[in-house]
Amino acid sequence: MAAFDFAPLLNSGLPAPAARWTGLAKYSFVGGNNDPGAVPVDALRAAADAVLAREGRALATYGLAHGPQGYRPLRDFLASKLSRDAGMSARADDIMILSGSLQGLDLVNQALLTRGDTVLVEQDNYQGTLTRLARLGVKTIGIPLDGDGMRTDALATVLADLKDRGIRPKYIYTIPTVQNPTGTIMPENRRAELLWLSRAYGVPVFEDDCYADLIWEGRRPRAIHGMSDHGGVIHLGSFSKSVAPALRVGFLVAPWEIMSVLLALKTDAGSGALEQMVLAEYCKPHFATHVPQLVRGLRAKLGTLIEALDAEFGTAAEFVPPKGGIFLWVKLPDQVDAMKLSQAALKRGVSINPGPEWSTDAAHSRSRLRLCFASPSHQEIRDGIAVLAEVCRHEFGVPLRSANVEHSSAGE
Amino acid sequence: MAAFDFAPLLNSGLPAPAARWTGLAKYSFVGGNNDPGAVPVDALRAAADAVLAREGRALATYGLAHGPQGYRPLRDFLASKLSRDAGMSARADDIMILSGSLQGLDLVNQALLTRGDTVLVEQDNYQGTLTRLARLGVKTIGIPLDGDGMRTDALATVLADLKDRGIRPKYIYTIPTVQNPTGTIMPENRRAELLWLSRAYGVPVFEDDCYADLIWEGRRPRAIHGMSDHGGVIHLGSFSKSVAPALRVGFLVAPWEIMSVLLALKTDAGSGALEQMVLAEYCKPHFATHVPQLVRGLRAKLGTLIEALDAEFGTAAEFVPPKGGIFLWVKLPDQVDAMKLSQAALKRGVSINPGPEWSTDAAHSRSRLRLCFASPSHQEIRDGIAVLAEVCRHEFGVPLRSANVEHSSAGE
Repeated sequence: MAAFDFAPLLNSGLPAPAARWTGLAKYSFVGGNNDPGAVPVDALRAAADAVLAREGRALATYGLAHGPQGYRPLRDFLASKLSRDAGMSARADDIMILSGSLQGLDLVNQALLTRGDTVLVEQDNYQGTLTRLARLGVKTIGIPLDGDGMRTDALATVLADLKDRGIRPKYIYTIPTVQNPTGTIMPENRRAELLWLSRAYGVPVFEDDCYADLIWEGRRPRAIHGMSDHGGVIHLGSFSKSVAPALRVGFLVAPWEIMSVLLALKTDAGSGALEQMVLAEYCKPHFATHVPQLVRGLRAKLGTLIEALDAEFGTAAEFVPPKGGIFLWVKLPDQVDAMKLSQAALKRGVSINPGPEWSTDAAHSRSRLRLCFASPSHQEIRDGIAVLAEVCRHEFGVPLRSANVEHSSAGE
Repeated sequence: MAAFDFAPLLNSGLPAPAARWTGLAKYSFVGGNNDPGAVPVDALRAAADAVLAREGRALATYGLAHGPQGYRPLRDFLASKLSRDAGMSARADDIMILSGSLQGLDLVNQALLTRGDTVLVEQDNYQGTLTRLARLGVKTIGIPLDGDGMRTDALATVLADLKDRGIRPKYIYTIPTVQNPTGTIMPENRRAELLWLSRAYGVPVFEDDCYADLIWEGRRPRAIHGMSDHGGVIHLGSFSKSVAPALRVGFLVAPWEIMSVLLALKTDAGSGALEQMVLAEYCKPHFATHVPQLVRGLRAKLGTLIEALDAEFGTAAEFVPPKGGIFLWVKLPDQVDAMKLSQAALKRGVSINPGPEWSTDAAHSRSRLRLCFASPSHQEIRDGIAVLAEVCRHEFGVPLRSANVEHSSAGE
């Protein structure tokens, strides 16, 4: 009997079907994966045991009867953390827990965006944001970055130009605190300029602060949300980078006017309660000491990656060391096509994120790539970068052999 | 300074903004909440501890590196459970784990439905399905039910009529095993008829089997998916009813042709891993003994609810006892407007689901209501139904006082 044919029933404009999962590459520098050794397993076990013993029966009720904004103790923890670290004055009632911060992107987009709308984003950007905007048929204007993040002078020019043309963008999306992929941190004076532009043009700021806990120097600037006095900022955060990405728990902070709309759109019957319970129980006593320890380990891995790139690529790999986070944004010589490099490298067991998938500017990002250094071990970083250099040399003639030779001599 | 005004930026056609959460009613008969006493807290604690100790470090990687279909041991458990209980021959590769079965509704709808499309559903139905279809602008045709679930004779008539008019519905959505809200179970011969119609008209079956574990008699009919030989069935299930609703873990079984499309649409970076891990660890040794125990408790609560309705409403409350599940679907006299009753009852601390929110037929459901008996205690069921009867009498003159007097005498 012929199998049922779904094809004629499918909507048009769907993304390409998924391929079968074949596992991670041997040397995986992709995604936002973190250091397995840094997962606080024993403390999470203790937290799970304590909170289940105390409140496990509440799992019989959707959302633990804490309402659609999520588990109250987790929101209480966040309110105090965001006040202490980010200068935000959010109360628990201003916070909603999400099934990962990606759900926040989807909810905000559902509330604000229609095909043909315009949004402003940093030119080099998080792929998950760019693909969402593309699928929605939204016009995405990339604002160039410098060492201090999104350039507000360029933003001002674009906003003025759009206003002249009668276009009011729906939001300015920014990752101001450890930008993805560039690793920059926007200083407070530039945050103030951005807020001034937001108010002047009536365009809200969508602040994605997912990496804000992972800063080498420890102290972070105030969140844009915390500096705002006009309420036009939607703030997004996550535990994926600070505790563990496979836990799907993010959060959003926003005025009730927009929060109430997002809550009406969140029709998932609540985010996973056990993960919220365990996180709250874990974070209250441990978060403040866990994060600096995690960050030290990440910084050491960045050191290893930079050494490996210097050794294997020499001057062929250009980069500015990030001020925190888990990514290095690397520029290779112009002849390197990063899309082709990523495919060739994958065949040799090395996965990388090619620049064009992380940018609004195809030419600018053509020879760039994003390397996650948190997930592979120090040895995997060294070995993986050595293979990547070999593949790059074979495909594009760079780095020159000499870089490698220097490395060999130095190692003897 | 004036607060930022989001209103001009919002999309049109959004649902009404959420109201502030004010907690559950004192006597809550709404939603799919379950019995707090039946949550297997100690076994979940042991499962959490064991699986975190063994695999906790994997939380550093999105999806535990098990791929977008979810935690492999949970899919292995499901493959064996579905084979044993539901006669399905799904392998782990045919199963995707969801963040609750609602995500399955959203993914399937995203893949198949466009404004103006037609779908067929059971006339009395799950509210979450009906509101989703309404928001998508889909034409939803309700097929009448009898004691054996969706009437396939009526389905055949509707399909033939639609075909005459050149309309091919996108799917037939059914809850065949403990239908929500009527509590019926479709026998296998009718399932075979439904499959015959599905093939004859080229319309896939979307089988929502969320309540299928909760059956008084234990044995369930084979799933429609298990009886199909043409692959035109998408099967949906959940742990919300069998273990705990606040855990957001559901699953979907479908041929790769449609599964691969749904996976491409699932852009949430994986469903919560800790909940999947704990469930797999718990279910493998405990599921088969936990469920009959849970079911015995639910059936006892149904007994209490039926006694309370008989005592307080007498003949004014008509119903057919369900064959399983957590709901009773009650018909009150025609003068009762269930929407008004639900509002008046809420003021007295009793929450109920009014029929019109659970049906495609406003007239048929006007005086009906759905009562969840799993969540309140036996005493809360008795007290809540007494208050509901009082409110109903005050608002609509039924039940007559005599029913209550009989109850009082009987109780002395």
